[in-house]
Amino acid sequence: MKYSVICIGDELLIGQVTDTNSGWIARELVPYGWEAAYVKIIADDASDIADAIDEAMNKTDVVLMTGGLGPTKDDITKATLCDYFDGELVYDEVTAQNVLEVVRKRGIKLNEYTRLQAMVPSTCRVIQNQVGTASIMWFERDGKVLVSMPGVPHETCTMMQREVIPQLLNHFNDGMHVEHRTLVVSGIIESALAMKLDDFESQLPEYLHLAYLPKEGIIRLRLDGHHGDAALLKTEMDAAVAQLHQLLGSLIIADGDKPLAAILGDALRERQLTMASAESCTGGNIAHEITRIAGSSEYFTGSVTCYDTKVKINQLKVPQEVVDKHTVVSRPVVEQMVQGVCDLLGCDCSVATSGVAGPGGGTEETPVGTVWMAAKVKDRVVSQVKRFPGDRDRVINRATTEAMLLLLNLLKKE
Amino acid sequence: MKYSVICIGDELLIGQVTDTNSGWIARELVPYGWEAAYVKIIADDASDIADAIDEAMNKTDVVLMTGGLGPTKDDITKATLCDYFDGELVYDEVTAQNVLEVVRKRGIKLNEYTRLQAMVPSTCRVIQNQVGTASIMWFERDGKVLVSMPGVPHETCTMMQREVIPQLLNHFNDGMHVEHRTLVVSGIIESALAMKLDDFESQLPEYLHLAYLPKEGIIRLRLDGHHGDAALLKTEMDAAVAQLHQLLGSLIIADGDKPLAAILGDALRERQLTMASAESCTGGNIAHEITRIAGSSEYFTGSVTCYDTKVKINQLKVPQEVVDKHTVVSRPVVEQMVQGVCDLLGCDCSVATSGVAGPGGGTEETPVGTVWMAAKVKDRVVSQVKRFPGDRDRVINRATTEAMLLLLNLLKKE
Repeated sequence: MKYSVICIGDELLIGQVTDTNSGWIARELVPYGWEAAYVKIIADDASDIADAIDEAMNKTDVVLMTGGLGPTKDDITKATLCDYFDGELVYDEVTAQNVLEVVRKRGIKLNEYTRLQAMVPSTCRVIQNQVGTASIMWFERDGKVLVSMPGVPHETCTMMQREVIPQLLNHFNDGMHVEHRTLVVSGIIESALAMKLDDFESQLPEYLHLAYLPKEGIIRLRLDGHHGDAALLKTEMDAAVAQLHQLLGSLIIADGDKPLAAILGDALRERQLTMASAESCTGGNIAHEITRIAGSSEYFTGSVTCYDTKVKINQLKVPQEVVDKHTVVSRPVVEQMVQGVCDLLGCDCSVATSGVAGPGGGTEETPVGTVWMAAKVKDRVVSQVKRFPGDRDRVINRATTEAMLLLLNLLKKE
Repeated sequence: MKYSVICIGDELLIGQVTDTNSGWIARELVPYGWEAAYVKIIADDASDIADAIDEAMNKTDVVLMTGGLGPTKDDITKATLCDYFDGELVYDEVTAQNVLEVVRKRGIKLNEYTRLQAMVPSTCRVIQNQVGTASIMWFERDGKVLVSMPGVPHETCTMMQREVIPQLLNHFNDGMHVEHRTLVVSGIIESALAMKLDDFESQLPEYLHLAYLPKEGIIRLRLDGHHGDAALLKTEMDAAVAQLHQLLGSLIIADGDKPLAAILGDALRERQLTMASAESCTGGNIAHEITRIAGSSEYFTGSVTCYDTKVKINQLKVPQEVVDKHTVVSRPVVEQMVQGVCDLLGCDCSVATSGVAGPGGGTEETPVGTVWMAAKVKDRVVSQVKRFPGDRDRVINRATTEAMLLLLNLLKKE
C-alpha cells in the first residue's frame, strides 16, 4: 500500500517544533510492506491544506494527516475536509460525550472551545480519541482512505497503535501475513557487516527483506516478511534469524529492538549484578540513559559526576600523583574511577569516562574528541581510548554508547 | 521571499533518520522575513525528485534541496538536476581540488566514488563545500533560485551559515534591514503572557512582529523587524525590548536565545559560585544538561545520582528515620540532599530531585509524575513539589527544567 503523510502546523514550518510523527508512522507501517510516497509539511492555511489533500488523494492510496486540529485551529482543517468530501459540520453526541470524558479525566473545565470539538464533518466516520479532545476522522473516496488525526505525538501514536493501524490493515486486508524481527549488532561497521551478509541476503526468499539501520556505533538489522501462508512465513523467519545468529555470533547483542541501556540492564538483571557510573566528560549522560529505562532501579545504584578533578581525587580516590603524572584523561585515572565508584556506592560493576568533549580543552597529545573509558565487573577491569569526531554533543553521545558497550562486553564474559 | 524545502532520502521516509534540516533552515530564515511555503520529504527516486523540483519551482521563489548527494546516491539527483536545468555532467577541476583537500584533512584515501563527486551539472554554479565532499549547486531560472546541498545536518548548517544564506540575501537584496531579539521568559503560562502583552502587541509598529515560542515551561519571545532604515529599526527594537523588560520584570530570565542550563551557568559565573546536583528521579539529566554547555567546568563541580536509597543515606547523609517517616519522595529528603551534596563535593550551590518518573512506582499519595525538588545557595534552601503529566521521559525533562529554574530564581536573590 502506498501512503502519504500531510503534517499541518505553522509551528512545524517555522522550525519551532520538529515533526516526529511521520518517522514514527513509517517505522510502524514498514513492517506491513506499506510504503511512504512522501511527507509534506504545510501551514495552517485553507488553500494549502486543500491543495495538499488533492495531491495526496491523487498520488496515494492512503493519506494520513496529522495536526491542524485542536481548539483554536479546528475550523480551517475541518472546513477544508468538509469541502473536499462534500459534507457539512454537524454536532455529534457520541463525540461530545467522549470530549467530556477526556476533559473530566484531566480535571479541566469544559469551555466553548472544547464544545466546538464535538462538531464533525457529516461525511466522515469518527474514531473517538481516547487520550485527547481532537477527534480522529476517517474519510473514504474511490477506494482511497484519508485519516485526519491530532498533531500531538503522544495522541497520534497512541491512537494509531490502538485504532487507526488495525483499522487500516483490516480495511485493506490482502490476505497477507506479516512478521518482523530485529537484531541489535555492535562491534562492526556497516560496510563490513554488509559484506559478511552478502551471501545470506542473496539467498533470502523474495518475501523476506533485510534492512540495515545504523546509529551511533550500533546497527539494527531488521527482517521484514510478508506471505499468505503464516506458518511458512514464521518457519522461514525463524530459520533466517537462526542463520544470522550463526553468521554473526557475539556481534549480536540483542534479539528484539531495544535501546542499548535496556540491553545492558537485561544483562545485569540476568546476572543479578548492580552497577554505577563515574562520569567526567559524559557529565551524567550514562546515568541519564540508564535511568530512562523503567525498572532500572533494580540494578542501577547511582553515579558520581566528577567534573572537578578534586571529586575524582576526594570521592573516587584517584591519587593526586596519578593525575599529575598521566593527566586526568588517561588509562590509570579511568581505571581508578571504576574502582572508586564501586567502593563508594557499594556495587558490583561500573563504568567510567574521562575525555575532552570540546570545543576547548584539547592539546596536541589529547585532542578534542579523545575519551578514555573503563568498565569493571567484580574483579575484572578493562579500559580503552577512542577519538570521536564531531561537536560536543556528538562526542558525549558516542562516549556514552561506547562506555556502555565496554561494560556489556565484559559482562558477557561473566 | 517564499521558499520551499525538498529533503531527499529513503532513510527519512522509512523513519530511520528524522529531518532536522528544514526546521534549522526555518529558524535561520524567519528573522529575514523569509517564509517557508512547505517542506516535502521524498525518496531517492528520479521521477519523485523531478516532480518535486517542478512543483517547488512553480510555487516558490527559492528552492532549498537537501540530501540525495554523496558517493552512492549522487547519480540520481545530479542527473535529474541536469535534465531539469538543461545541462550535462562535466568534470570540474576546482571542485576536484576541493574534494581532494577535504578528503586529505579527514585522512581518508581518495577512491573512485570521491572522484565522481567532482562531476557537476554544467548549468550550475558550484559553491565549494568546506566540510564535506558533496558539492553545493546553485541553479537559476526565471528569476528563481534552486540550491542543492548535502543532507548531513552538520554540512548543511555550516555551509548555509557560511555561504548559502549570505549569497541568497545578497541575490534577493531588497534594501531591507533585519533585526531580531529573543527574550527567555519563565514562571508564566502562554495564555497569561499573551494577555499581559496584549496592549504592547497592538501598539507595535507594523514592521515589528512578536512571536511566542513555548517549550517545557519556558517561553521564548522573539521580536523580528524589517525596515529600509537601519537606524530607525534599531531604535524601535531597543525601545520594544526595553518596554518588554518593564512589563515583564523578573519573568525575563535571559536576553538572547540560550538554553536554560547556559542561563543558569551565566548566573553562577557572575556570582563566582560553584554548584552540584543530587539526583534521584532525574537520574543524572540535570548534570547532563549542565555539562552539555561548553565551559561548564568553571562552575559545575559534579553530581551524585542517588538512585538507590542507600546512596541518599550513606553519601548524602539523609537520616534513615527521615526516609522511614516521610518516604524518599518528600520535602525533608530533598532538603537534606542539597545540603549533603554541597558537603560531599564542596561547593556553594546545589539542586536536588526525588520523585516518581513512572510508569510504575506510583501510590495514591504520591502518584506517578510527583517530584520534590530543592535548591540551595549558600545558607538558603528552598523546595517545592510538582506533579507532571506525560510519560517517563517527559517527567524527567520537566523535573530537570523546574529544578534548574528553582536554583536560578534563588540565585537571583543573592
